[in-house]
Amino acid sequence: MALVNPAAPLRIVIAPSGFKESLSAESVAEAIEAGVRRVVPDALVDSIPLVDGGEGSARTLARVTGGQVVPVTVTGPLGTPVDAHFAVLGGSGKPTAVVEMAAAAGLRLVPPAHRDPGRTTTRGVGELLLAALDHGCRRILVGCGDSGTCDGGAGALQALGVELTDVHGRAIGSGGAALTEVRRIDVGGLDARLAETDLVVACNPHNLLTGSSGVARVFGPQKGADAERTEHLAAAMDRWSAVLAAHCGRELGQAAGSGASGGLGAGLAGVLGARLRPRFEVMLDHVDLDAALAAADLVITAEGAIDFQTPRGKVPAEVARRAKPYGRPVIALAGTIGDGARDNYAAGIDAFAGILAAPVQLSEAIARAAELVTDATERALRLVLVGAALGRAA
Amino acid sequence: MALVNPAAPLRIVIAPSGFKESLSAESVAEAIEAGVRRVVPDALVDSIPLVDGGEGSARTLARVTGGQVVPVTVTGPLGTPVDAHFAVLGGSGKPTAVVEMAAAAGLRLVPPAHRDPGRTTTRGVGELLLAALDHGCRRILVGCGDSGTCDGGAGALQALGVELTDVHGRAIGSGGAALTEVRRIDVGGLDARLAETDLVVACNPHNLLTGSSGVARVFGPQKGADAERTEHLAAAMDRWSAVLAAHCGRELGQAAGSGASGGLGAGLAGVLGARLRPRFEVMLDHVDLDAALAAADLVITAEGAIDFQTPRGKVPAEVARRAKPYGRPVIALAGTIGDGARDNYAAGIDAFAGILAAPVQLSEAIARAAELVTDATERALRLVLVGAALGRAA
Repeated sequence: MALVNPAAPLRIVIAPSGFKESLSAESVAEAIEAGVRRVVPDALVDSIPLVDGGEGSARTLARVTGGQVVPVTVTGPLGTPVDAHFAVLGGSGKPTAVVEMAAAAGLRLVPPAHRDPGRTTTRGVGELLLAALDHGCRRILVGCGDSGTCDGGAGALQALGVELTDVHGRAIGSGGAALTEVRRIDVGGLDARLAETDLVVACNPHNLLTGSSGVARVFGPQKGADAERTEHLAAAMDRWSAVLAAHCGRELGQAAGSGASGGLGAGLAGVLGARLRPRFEVMLDHVDLDAALAAADLVITAEGAIDFQTPRGKVPAEVARRAKPYGRPVIALAGTIGDGARDNYAAGIDAFAGILAAPVQLSEAIARAAELVTDATERALRLVLVGAALGRAA
Repeated sequence: MALVNPAAPLRIVIAPSGFKESLSAESVAEAIEAGVRRVVPDALVDSIPLVDGGEGSARTLARVTGGQVVPVTVTGPLGTPVDAHFAVLGGSGKPTAVVEMAAAAGLRLVPPAHRDPGRTTTRGVGELLLAALDHGCRRILVGCGDSGTCDGGAGALQALGVELTDVHGRAIGSGGAALTEVRRIDVGGLDARLAETDLVVACNPHNLLTGSSGVARVFGPQKGADAERTEHLAAAMDRWSAVLAAHCGRELGQAAGSGASGGLGAGLAGVLGARLRPRFEVMLDHVDLDAALAAADLVITAEGAIDFQTPRGKVPAEVARRAKPYGRPVIALAGTIGDGARDNYAAGIDAFAGILAAPVQLSEAIARAAELVTDATERALRLVLVGAALGRAA
């Protein structure tokens, strides 16, 4: 089959998310490019692996900016040490760290039998912030997503020197459930370097700290809370919201992104003055996606699942949103196609394709994901080329 | 998204096979058309469900030609009665019957615990031929495929009045294994109407009666023969081939299609003078696929599986072969995409797409096949339209 226009190579932007528990965003991008090359060998490919702040984000941003990954051992979500890391971005600006909260307090670090978001702590996130300060960074991006905690960021704050006390002036315990006791925030012992640090929390603005769609009720169950624990945690978040408001003079409970990563967003905003910003704005500050989209003929994105949640702030929908002003067609590849996937057509994703070839177990699909992505890309691009020939003929 | 050319509606030929154990060819065609309508509501659709002579072929041909299905109770492959049927094609020509051998002797009629191709019989196929003769048909198409027998058509011949005897002049028993004893064919009692009947066997020309790729060795195991039984049956087919040659003066063992449906092709050719013809030539005599292809912008075909076997005489490859002279692009939808599926690109299938959306059991995919086909058609056509826009822009 001929190229779309033999005189001008097809310009393709590959801008996928990673596939959770399977492939990093870079690996997905490589697998897609291999499929593109089978069909359009001389395509001009601009590969831009995208991250949303969750698992893998720090490593990916280090790689795509030519920065570095700094390993640090911190307190894990269960209180025992875990091997974590933060990234220092490459480039010439102010030294910037990316602290991915999931590296220190992710759900993946909590074995299923021990999942109780009333007990797990973000202390390790605070320790990563300290390590980034020690490294000389005075601009720190905190990536949210994939958390195993619901402590409102209390653990992180404690690690940075904040004291949280109860009605008797005694330090409260660790974990989100203890926040039902919190009455006062004392920042006297706070690490002084934070005053000169630009702290940005990259969060999904749809996540709120309190209310019926608050973080405890929406995410508590998937982090291991039963019904009773969920309501207890919801009450703890209400208490925490009230104490934060008294401390900083702002109601944060319903602020966009306040519920990010079990309320980490609210804690860092209310006590450290961190700015809560939509995750893609922050994460895409460091990759020039818009310029790439402007120059593209075709955009290929991908995500582990395409479903009704995709339009609510997932990578493929964000890519489609940004491609729209330039009129670029957007194709999404999906590990699995779930309920409500067709909603994505209205969200600006022009077409999508699944990677599965035959009935398989999820585990096998995950193990063979790179090969499946490459084959699916080939299949999708061949359909596009069938259309290109029709379009030329019309 | 705009149509390819708003001034001229897209002309789409939908020419799928059925999905075995799941959807008839007509149901697949309907499901594809529903998907087409979601994307290109005003497409001019020409729907041509295709059959290969196997299960479902008689009913489908009756429907597409405006003919009728005639129910008949016949002897099943295990010797007990089964509800079978033949079709009488519509149209103005000579009354033509379609006898689908699988309706009387298909593998589906043999419970797995009773599968032994040394014992099963095609007697019911002969009884269907008698019923078609009784109905006044003097042109009969015998569709092969999906058989549960390996008796060289001996049972069918016996039902039509042929005597098969051993070295002692005694009638041999029923089933393929008994053919090791056959020495002589006596057609003295043959139904006289057959002399004035045009009998055509629609078969896969790759199926041979004897040799290392003979029907016993290639298909015996999947019909339930163990290794010993398979070799016994191979010897029986050798004997049958020799006796047929002595009877009719032609070596049929390596004739194209002689091995069709456990050697039914050879038996009907050698004793009744039936013509063995490639199945698609016969089956497509009654649907004007070529004219439809000539008028199409785009061709969509489908099969339950797309894999290395597809180019060897399956419906999508045949559609691609016939579309090629007209330069029409061919897309294939597949229930499952199997090993060697990419071979189909070289066989003229320009692009293919799987119907699976998420990891599932085969049984669930089968149960939901129509819905999956519709959704997959929509996804594939959206990719085509993305390409059409690129092609117009180029």
